[in-house]
This record gives sequence, C-alpha cells and structure tokens, in this order.
Amino acid sequence: MVPASMSAELIAVGSELLRPGRHESNTVWLAERLERLGIPVSGRRIVGDDPARIASAVAAAVRDARVVIVTGGLGPTEDDRTREGLAGGLGKALVRDEDRLAALRDLFQRFGRPFHESQASQAELPAGAEFLENPLGTAPGIVLESDDRLVFAVPGVPAEMRRMFDEQIAPRLAGFGTPLRRRTLKVAGRTESQVDLAVADLFDLPGTESSILIGSEGIELHLGSRGSSAEQAGKRLADLERRMSERLGPDLYGRDEETLAAVVGGLLSAANRTVAVAESCTAGALAARITSEPGSSAWFRGGLIVYHDDLKLSLAGVSSELLELHGAVSPEVAEALARGARTRCAASFGIGVTGIAGPGGGTAEKPVGLVHLALDDGVAIHRRRLRQFGDRLLVRRRTVVAALDLLRRRLLGVETG
Amino acid sequence: MVPASMSAELIAVGSELLRPGRHESNTVWLAERLERLGIPVSGRRIVGDDPARIASAVAAAVRDARVVIVTGGLGPTEDDRTREGLAGGLGKALVRDEDRLAALRDLFQRFGRPFHESQASQAELPAGAEFLENPLGTAPGIVLESDDRLVFAVPGVPAEMRRMFDEQIAPRLAGFGTPLRRRTLKVAGRTESQVDLAVADLFDLPGTESSILIGSEGIELHLGSRGSSAEQAGKRLADLERRMSERLGPDLYGRDEETLAAVVGGLLSAANRTVAVAESCTAGALAARITSEPGSSAWFRGGLIVYHDDLKLSLAGVSSELLELHGAVSPEVAEALARGARTRCAASFGIGVTGIAGPGGGTAEKPVGLVHLALDDGVAIHRRRLRQFGDRLLVRRRTVVAALDLLRRRLLGVETG
Repeated sequence: MVPASMSAELIAVGSELLRPGRHESNTVWLAERLERLGIPVSGRRIVGDDPARIASAVAAAVRDARVVIVTGGLGPTEDDRTREGLAGGLGKALVRDEDRLAALRDLFQRFGRPFHESQASQAELPAGAEFLENPLGTAPGIVLESDDRLVFAVPGVPAEMRRMFDEQIAPRLAGFGTPLRRRTLKVAGRTESQVDLAVADLFDLPGTESSILIGSEGIELHLGSRGSSAEQAGKRLADLERRMSERLGPDLYGRDEETLAAVVGGLLSAANRTVAVAESCTAGALAARITSEPGSSAWFRGGLIVYHDDLKLSLAGVSSELLELHGAVSPEVAEALARGARTRCAASFGIGVTGIAGPGGGTAEKPVGLVHLALDDGVAIHRRRLRQFGDRLLVRRRTVVAALDLLRRRLLGVETG
Repeated sequence: MVPASMSAELIAVGSELLRPGRHESNTVWLAERLERLGIPVSGRRIVGDDPARIASAVAAAVRDARVVIVTGGLGPTEDDRTREGLAGGLGKALVRDEDRLAALRDLFQRFGRPFHESQASQAELPAGAEFLENPLGTAPGIVLESDDRLVFAVPGVPAEMRRMFDEQIAPRLAGFGTPLRRRTLKVAGRTESQVDLAVADLFDLPGTESSILIGSEGIELHLGSRGSSAEQAGKRLADLERRMSERLGPDLYGRDEETLAAVVGGLLSAANRTVAVAESCTAGALAARITSEPGSSAWFRGGLIVYHDDLKLSLAGVSSELLELHGAVSPEVAEALARGARTRCAASFGIGVTGIAGPGGGTAEKPVGLVHLALDDGVAIHRRRLRQFGDRLLVRRRTVVAALDLLRRRLLGVETG
C-alpha cells in the first residue's frame, strides 16, 4: 500500500475516450492547472462508462493521493455512471437529494422542457457529498471531503469542467500545494547551446525552475517559480525573468503566446512601414505566415513567388547574368530578389528568400538545407545565410522564422545574432 | 469485482508522462493496433516511476481485462521500476535469469562497453515470465501468460515498443479478437450532410462500421469491417469501399494518408501541365500548400501575392476599371487574377483567389468568409464562389482546399460539385 501523498489522481470517464486515435485532453488541462497550484499529478486514468470500473479506479485513486478529480459521466443518460461508480469506490451509499430534485424539476418547468425520469439521476450523490454548481449546464458536479481526502467529480464538457475547476475546485485546493508561476521566454537567432551558455547559472536560483526547449519558432525558456504564497512565487518569477531578459537582450522576441509574426507586425505598424516578399524555396509560406495575423494589410503589401528561375527574372527583375554567375541559391540572387520585392510591390522593406528545401536538388557545394536571405530597406542590404538540417517541412519553417527575425532586428536596429 | 473481459488494459509508466502539457502517445498507438486485431481497450492508465503504484495499476488491470500491456520503465536506471511493479502486481517473485545476465555481459563485452551492475536489473523478471527480444535496444520486454491472462511489458521508446508489438505481441494476440480492417475515404466539394445522404444506407452493411468526420481537407468517411478472419474482414472492406466509391464518384479524391496537394500534383505531373497562382486573401498559403509536396517544381511555376489592390493591377494586370466596377472581391477580379497568374507566370493553368478572410473588412453585401475562385486553363474559365463561416485561419484553409479541388476537377474533366 502506498501512503497517500500530497498529489492528485485524475480519472477521465467515457468509453469514447478509449477509442483509437483519441487524445484525452481534460486531464492534460487539469494537470497544468494543478501544477500552478503546486499540486503534482501522480496518476491519470481513462475508464469506460462502467460503474464497477469507475469504482475500482476511484478506490485506487483515493488510496494513492489526497486529491482526486473525476471528469465525465455526470449527465442524465444511461451511459452516465460516474455517480454510481464514485459512491461504490468511496464505499458510500448513493442517495437522492430531494431539494436538488425539486430544483431540477423547477428548472425544467421554467424553461418549458419536459422532465424525464432519467433526469432525476442528476440529483443523486454519494452520502456525505455536496453538489458543485454548474453555471454552464444542467449536470451538477460533486465534492466529498473525508479522511483527509478531497474527491471531486465534474462534467466532461471542457467548458463546464474548466469553469467549475477555476471557480469552485481551485479555491478549495488553496493551501494544499506550493503555488507555482510560469512564463515562457521566446528567443530567436541563437542555438539551444548558445542560450544555455548565456543563462545556465540562473537555472539554480532558489525557488525557481527553468528548462530550455526547442519550440516551433526557435528556442524557448520555460521559467517557473514556487513560493509559500502566490505573491512570493510571482515576485520570484518577475526577478528571474528580468535577469534572463538582461542576458538575452534583443534575442528575446516574445513571451508566452506571442508569435514572431505578431511581434514583427506590431513593430512595422508602430513604425508605419510595410513589407513585401520574393520567395523561391518557401514559395508563399513566409507571406502566409505574415498575413496569418489579423490586420496585416496595414503592414504587408504583397509578394512574388519565383519558384522557377525564369520568374526570378520576369517577376522580380533579377538579371540573367547574376543568375548565371552565382546560381539561383546565392547571396547575390537573394539580394536581387529583396530589391525586386521592395520596388515591384512598392514596400518599405523587401525580403528575398532562395534556397534548397530538399529532398532533391542538393549538390556538394550547395546542399539541401542551404538558404540565403536578404532584406532590402531601401538604403542597405542585410543578409543571412542559413545551413539547416531536417526535412523539407522543417527547412521551410525555420527559413520563415529566420526571415521574420531578420526583419525584426532591422526594425529594432540591432545586429543579427 | 468486474469479470475480466476480452479487452485490453494499457499502462504507460513514466513520471515524465504526468507532467502538464504532455500527451502520452504510446497507449494511443497501441489502442489503434489492438482495434485492428479486434481487441477493445477497456482502460488506459499513466503512472509514475513508483513500484508500488505500478503494482497497484497492474493488479487492477489483470482484474479487469484479459490482455494487459505496460510500456516504459524497463531500462537499466534507478528510475526503471516496471519489473518490480509488474512482479508485485502479479503476486510473483522477481527473479534473475542467469542465462540472460550472461548474455547481457557478453553483449557489452562484444561492443567494448563497460558492464555496470545496474545493467543486471535487465535480466530480472517475474517468476514464470519470459523475455521478449528487443531488436532495437538493450532492454528486453516481458511476457507472462497465466490464468487466462496475457501480460506484456515493453520499453517506452516508441520505435522499440512498436516493433516489438508488431513482431512479438500481435502474433500472440491472434485469435483473441475479431479482426478489423480500416480505410479512410476523402471527399471534396460536398458538405457533411450531402455525403451522409449519398451513402447513409451503406452504413448498415453486415460486419461493417462507418462514420463521417470533418477532416482538415474536407469530409472523411471512416470505414471499418470485421470478420472471423483477416481475409473476411478485408473482403468486406473492399466491397464496402467499392460501393461507397460508386456513390461518391469524382468527389472522392483520396484514401488514407493521401493529401489533396499530392493528388493534384500527381494529376498535373501525369498530364505534363503546370500551375501558377495569384492570391489575395490566402496570401501565399495556396502556393505554400502546393509546394509542400516534394518534387513540386515539376508542376508549380510560381505566383503573385496581390494583397493590396494596386498590386492586383501592377503585378497581375487586372484593369482598374474592372476593380472599380466590381470591387476586389468579385468573380470578375478572380478571373482576371487567374489569367494574370497563367500568363505572367507562363503556366498551363492559373488560379485566382480573392476574398475576405476577416475578422475585419466585411460588409453586408460582401461579408467575412466570402471568397471567389477562378481557374483559367487558357481556353475557358472555371469559377467557384465560397461562402464560409469560421475564423481567419479556417476561411483561408478551406479556400486553399477548394482551390486545389477546382483544379483537380478540371484535370479529371468533371464538374465542380
């Protein structure tokens, strides 16, 4: 027998959650929320709509942990067996709350809907438990506090579950764990090991925890801090973030959910400038990313997709001599593409992209993954050479990120990292 | 106590799997494989690297189901406690296999690597169990057959787990379930209810099961068939697929993992034709999708991203009269864009896209989600008007799909659905 620890066990109920290809997401969300409260998750279970199996899972969970949260199976249909399973697993009788039943009937009457007898099951709960109100649906939740344990059941509808957790469960868990605060710092233009070198000594600050991850747009620093109070945790996080920011300087481009496209759009908009592109290997992916931001017509003009070499000439005005002399994948052609984008699309900035995304087309001299970027601001040209590993999708995605970062640094007036 | 059913319980072991934001994927993969064998999954559990918790999960699993598969925790480190937990949960002693130990020592010696005492744990297993060979790593798996139950443990490294399942576990499960075969049919240019209407009566064919889903590129029909043998299941599936295909006709564009971009690329390539685009609201997303296919330089020429109206004139040759008369979002401008794409990029086909992706820019007459597409094949113009609901991302994504489908139908010589 394991001594129950100050941790949480999560049980998702629903036969549909066991189907192939199905990722259960309620317990993933709950684990994230519980972590913020400083309560680690010691187990996650998915069980079908079977009262005996639910009971077995609940019994095991209350043996193992002091907090148990069950999601799903609280509706009025035949399939909804969580109330029964919960009572069974806790060794309690399932009782009917007559006040709740009357209130339910009343609710249906007020909305002019017929009350089916099956609805009455929603007024049942294990003896000694209380209801949790559901502001978004008819199925109430359940809470039972006994023997140092806190057991919750909430509906599986994500919106209902989330709101009930935040408003009714989280307050009851306050004081159980050590509050945690999190922040993600996003870094462009540096490798993982460069970021590690720059900030590694800050990983050991008391009460904090940090890790480096490779995100979809570059390197991410995931910071966390704990404290005896939310305030202390918040103060520690702010201090850690300030010190990290100083080290990272302009390589730090955003926080949490901020994207590079949004950051660049904001800078262009603030400077009242516009951008246009001439893309070869990315073939529209850079423009599509820039315009994924609502309102991007304020800063994006348009672009040229010059996949074939003759279009580099006819659409972007690259000279055939330049192409012959240096080849399509060269700094010189990238520069000419940037100029072509800026002038032909009448933008403040032009970005040129040319490279080899693979899997074919590489040579010993110009291998798959080689990309040349250029930014023309009307006065000077800013260049960048990328040498990337990975498949076609990755090479294109990283090229888009590097192009956005090149523009970001020009707008900030800082050198490319 | 639940009577053990002909189902499988899956247990993923690893404290890291309980971290917030982490989707555990081994049991999702296993559920899909087990379904093909006709064995339903009755429960999935994730537990940390704690032998007592692993034992408790295993004990519950063998109570509930006849097949139990545990993944992870079989390596040589301190954290790897699955062997211990498995023995505990099955009520067996953990014993050391001296032959296996000698073989392990031998293996390390042959590869010139030092043998640490911790490695010896990999020669341990519950009494009565046998090892499963791991062709991709050093940690062997374990299988124990007793009391009508089959309990397996395999490493958590996905490649090792998958190969061991396919080669060593699946054969042992043959005959346990009713074999299932699956196929996905992909449909473009019809709504969910149109597809439903066309094929609904085929949903009831004996031994088959089908469902309609909305996929990322359109409607998907997920077909399944069961049989007493894999052959019978396969025959039923082939028959169902043939009948569905007859009903769907040219609206059926692909199967399983096929994408619309790959299908269109194949058709263009076979016909030795090329395409170019002029995109307004999708701003490069169509071109990026077409060129996501390796080898697309054989059929994609290039394109014009004409986000601002003046570029529709200067880059694509749309006349200012046309723009003034009909507005940028109109069939006429889509047609002029298609022609501009074809002629200026010297392609066999030109596709023009203009619309309102939102969230801003809509009017009562031309609301957010209105998109006009045109395809110019050099002889005739093929048009399509879309009226979509959803956010910016969805409107753009569906527009890309509709544009690819317009070209696909032209290449097949069939009318737009």
